[in-house]
Parts: sequence; C-alpha cells; structure tokens
Amino acid sequence: MRFCSFPTDDGLHAGAVLDDDLVADLTELAGAHSGSLPRTLLDWIGLGDEAVERLTDLCASAGRSHIAGSLADLQLTEPLGRLPRNVICVGANYREHIEESEEAVGPLDLPDEPVWFTKDVRSICGPYDDIATSDKVTGQLDWEVELAVVIGRAGRNIDPSEALGHVFGYAVLNDVSARDVQLGRKQWWKGKSLELSSPFGPYIVTRDEVPDPQNLELRCWVDGVEKQHSNTKLMIHDIAALISDLSRTLTLEPGDVISTGTPAGVGLGSTPPQWLRPGAVLESEITGLGRQRNRIVPEVE
Amino acid sequence: MRFCSFPTDDGLHAGAVLDDDLVADLTELAGAHSGSLPRTLLDWIGLGDEAVERLTDLCASAGRSHIAGSLADLQLTEPLGRLPRNVICVGANYREHIEESEEAVGPLDLPDEPVWFTKDVRSICGPYDDIATSDKVTGQLDWEVELAVVIGRAGRNIDPSEALGHVFGYAVLNDVSARDVQLGRKQWWKGKSLELSSPFGPYIVTRDEVPDPQNLELRCWVDGVEKQHSNTKLMIHDIAALISDLSRTLTLEPGDVISTGTPAGVGLGSTPPQWLRPGAVLESEITGLGRQRNRIVPEVE
Repeated sequence: MRFCSFPTDDGLHAGAVLDDDLVADLTELAGAHSGSLPRTLLDWIGLGDEAVERLTDLCASAGRSHIAGSLADLQLTEPLGRLPRNVICVGANYREHIEESEEAVGPLDLPDEPVWFTKDVRSICGPYDDIATSDKVTGQLDWEVELAVVIGRAGRNIDPSEALGHVFGYAVLNDVSARDVQLGRKQWWKGKSLELSSPFGPYIVTRDEVPDPQNLELRCWVDGVEKQHSNTKLMIHDIAALISDLSRTLTLEPGDVISTGTPAGVGLGSTPPQWLRPGAVLESEITGLGRQRNRIVPEVE
Repeated sequence: MRFCSFPTDDGLHAGAVLDDDLVADLTELAGAHSGSLPRTLLDWIGLGDEAVERLTDLCASAGRSHIAGSLADLQLTEPLGRLPRNVICVGANYREHIEESEEAVGPLDLPDEPVWFTKDVRSICGPYDDIATSDKVTGQLDWEVELAVVIGRAGRNIDPSEALGHVFGYAVLNDVSARDVQLGRKQWWKGKSLELSSPFGPYIVTRDEVPDPQNLELRCWVDGVEKQHSNTKLMIHDIAALISDLSRTLTLEPGDVISTGTPAGVGLGSTPPQWLRPGAVLESEITGLGRQRNRIVPEVE
C-alpha cells in the first residue's frame, strides 16, 4: 500500500492511497473505529510488524467510507509529518557521484565504510512545497534525488540477511544541499539542514509493493531538463548493508528515515556548476514511488 | 531554579530542585492542579518565556507537598528524557583543544565559522548511568566535558545581542566520542552517537541563576585524575554567536540542546593517547551545574 499525510482543519491526517488513487482518511477511520487505533502514520508504524496488515484490514473494512479526496486534489505534506529523529543520510554511495564531486572539489579520501551524516528534522518539506532560498544563506543550492528507507521494526546488530525485513517502506527524498555551507563548514549537517529545503514523499510505499529496492530508477529534473538518471543497483553500500552498519552502534526504531545517497548529475558536478535559483522547478522521481515537484522561490525577509 | 527528571512506577517525572536539595515532583503537582498543566519538563519548556515564572509559582504554592525525595536519593535521568531533535554540537571551539587534536591527527583546516555536527537522540544517557562499551564497536572511547545550552524561546535570525534571552537554562553534557569511528568515517555523527554513551545533566539550571555563562569552570576526571580543567570564557565562538549562527538557517525551538564544544585534555590529545576502558570512572562538572559520575562497563553481548 501507499501511505501519505495531508492537512485538514483538524491538523495533519494520515491517508491510505487506494487502487484508483482515492485517499482514505486513516485518522477519521481510526476515530470511527470501536477499538483504540493510532491517529498518525508515525504511530501506526510504531506498531511494528503488524502495522501493514492492520492498516490493510482497516481500509478493506471501510470500503468507500471516509474518502478524503483524490491523490491529485489533496495537498500532500511530508508523509510522516515532523520526524522524531534527524534523517540519517549516507554520502558518497554512488561511484559516479564520487567522481564528479572529486573533479569539483578534489580528493575526498573516503573510507571503505559508509559515511553517515544527518539532516535536521526542520529541513524536511512536503513533496509539492515551494523551497525558499536567500543569497544571504547560500549561493549554491543543489539537488540530490535519493531513495529513502523508512524503518518499521526495531533492531540492534541486524544481520544484512535480515535487514530488509526491518523496512516499513520506501519513498523519494531530495537531499537538497547548500554546497557552500556544507563544504565550507567541513561537517555537512548545517549545509544539509536549511529549513524546509528538502522534499520527502509524496507517499511511502510499503516494502511488499517494492519487490526489488535495488533495481529502481532515480530521476531528477531542473526546469524540465533531466539532470540525474541512475538506478539503485549502483549503490556502493546496498540497503541491507546500510541498515546493518547503522544498527551496530544504535538500536534502529520505527520511524527512522535513512536516505541512501545520490547518483551523479548534481549541480556541483556540472561544468560550469549549476545551482537552484528562484524561479526554477525541481522534480524528483523514483520508479513506483511517485514524483515530487517543487518551485524554488525567494525567501521573504 | 534547577530542573531534573527521575523514573517512577508511572514513567518519567519532572522535578524541581528546592533550596535544601529536596526535589518537588512537578508531574504530580501538575496532576493535582485544577488547571491543565504540562506533565514533562519538555512540555513546560515549550511554554516559552512564561515557563520559569509559572514553574516557580507552582513550586511556591505547593510548599512541601509532593516531595519525591532528596537529590542524593533520586535516581536522576537525563533531564529532558528522550530529546525531540538531535543534540546540535559545535566542534573545535577551544583553541588548546584544536592544538592537541592537530598534534594527534594533523591539520584540521578549520573555517572561521562554527563547525556543526549532531549527536543522535539515542546517544544521550543519564548523569549517573553506566556507559557500556565493546571492542567490536570502538577501541578509542574518549571524553569531552561541555557546557550544554537548552533553548527556551523559539527564534530565527537571532541577533547575538538578543541570543541569551532565548536560553531556558544550562547543563553539563559529556560529548563522549568513539575516535576511531568519528575520524575514520570523516563525518562525525556515527562516532558521536554510540547508544547511551553521553551523559547529560544532572539538572538544567535556569539562566537567571547563571549570571555569566561565559565564566564557568569545566572539569573532567577519569579515575579521579583531572584530565580537563578550563573555563567557558575561552570559547572561540561564544554562546550568543553560536545561537545566532544556528538561527540563520533554522528556526530554533524550545527543547533544542546546543553543546558548545570541549576544551583541551581529551584522551586523543594525551601522549600516548588514553581511552575509556571498562572499569574506568568518568566524572564531569561545571561550576554551579552539578557533577556527573559514570562507570564504564563492558557491553553485554
């Protein structure tokens, strides 16, 4: 199934996308249910392994009651609302992206293990939101389409062979980056964490509907011109290896979002470099996971 | 005032430390109150500027009712429980610490601006908790006593002259670091985020009781031997500058914790380097903010 969130007069509601692209209002369905059910997608995911089955049952029993609207009409937000923990991101996970980065900034001297950093929870915005930018903050706003993995089952010291069983689902995330801030500060968090800069969604597709997450096409366009076009099979550290590595030092928890790196074609790697300026339109898509569309706008001072 | 948290049969309760080191149970006081009051310290801090005044009134009106015990008897936890966002940390903020680090690992090529990174919310433990370590994860566990700043009032583009007015209070935080992981991975988050590795507390002291946060002594001992002894007046970027810099790209929110960097004397900078091993006792103290005491223990596999 596909799960999303959308604003209502009563705050953010969770939705399930039905086969005909109508969205069932899970928050209303939970309220109308005789049992005590979660109201948000994060709380549903917190149920662990039984979440998807119970959500599927709930939607099936509801039939066509509590339809909030069609996918095209609803103003979808980031699917999990405010995240409970920073997005955990891996850098330098596609070889051609490393090559273009090293051509731009010199040798990266990378280790064999994954290079982890995080994005602040405040950096995440909705899949169709405008992205505001200001020259006072950055002159080098760049794009990075990535496959995001949402954890559904807690675990520590997870063996790679078991890792994909800990996944709730997959989504598109654009790890928008202020290169001058990111590289100038040496540590990447600040340049990766501009407020409301990084679209997530439009929805999370549960793992049962993504038979091979290591064979998905990623694409990113700026003003309709294709900038990135690659495949998740080209990851250096695959999803299972990433989950396993993270879980050696931390207990992963439902609601963790892991962003798995970007392929070649970012603005930093272009000759000359290209940056997102007000007026530009950024689009990001992964096979089966939907397409984002975000306008870059000037920040109102 | 000083605010803390402690475990009860009913979950984590918030406490106010009274003058004679007895702790008033704020969660019980809130429950007994006729109005609707916050139950956790994080929710209190979320009230913004009026939080301290209302907490002071609540304690004054309660007299000696709802005393949970003495500071010495209660098993204090991290004062804010699970944090809502990663701890935001600045690296390389004391000149002598930069010098000892460069002697150990070579030139750091630092920018003039603050170098920000984060610690995962899962890395935070209580002020007296054991810290479990395993050779499978790190052979280089190191200490870093730091002044932590807890934000109480939201703000964006905060002028340095206004910045300290956004502080709720101050606390001790030891930014325990797995040097091999931190430096080997290039980006520091993973090596700074070992699960339950980094003590925070014992309490948060409100800003009205810390007349000059830029003149506090920081001290850290391992097995009773003083390793770090410095003063917050030696910060390169002072607290006001740090808050202002962060707020240029993000709206700071109540409950944000900013850790302001460590002075010289860490294990990496010793000759030969020294590391925390099972059996060691780590103590960390800042003038007026209390002293932590943590035993290093072997991780149970």
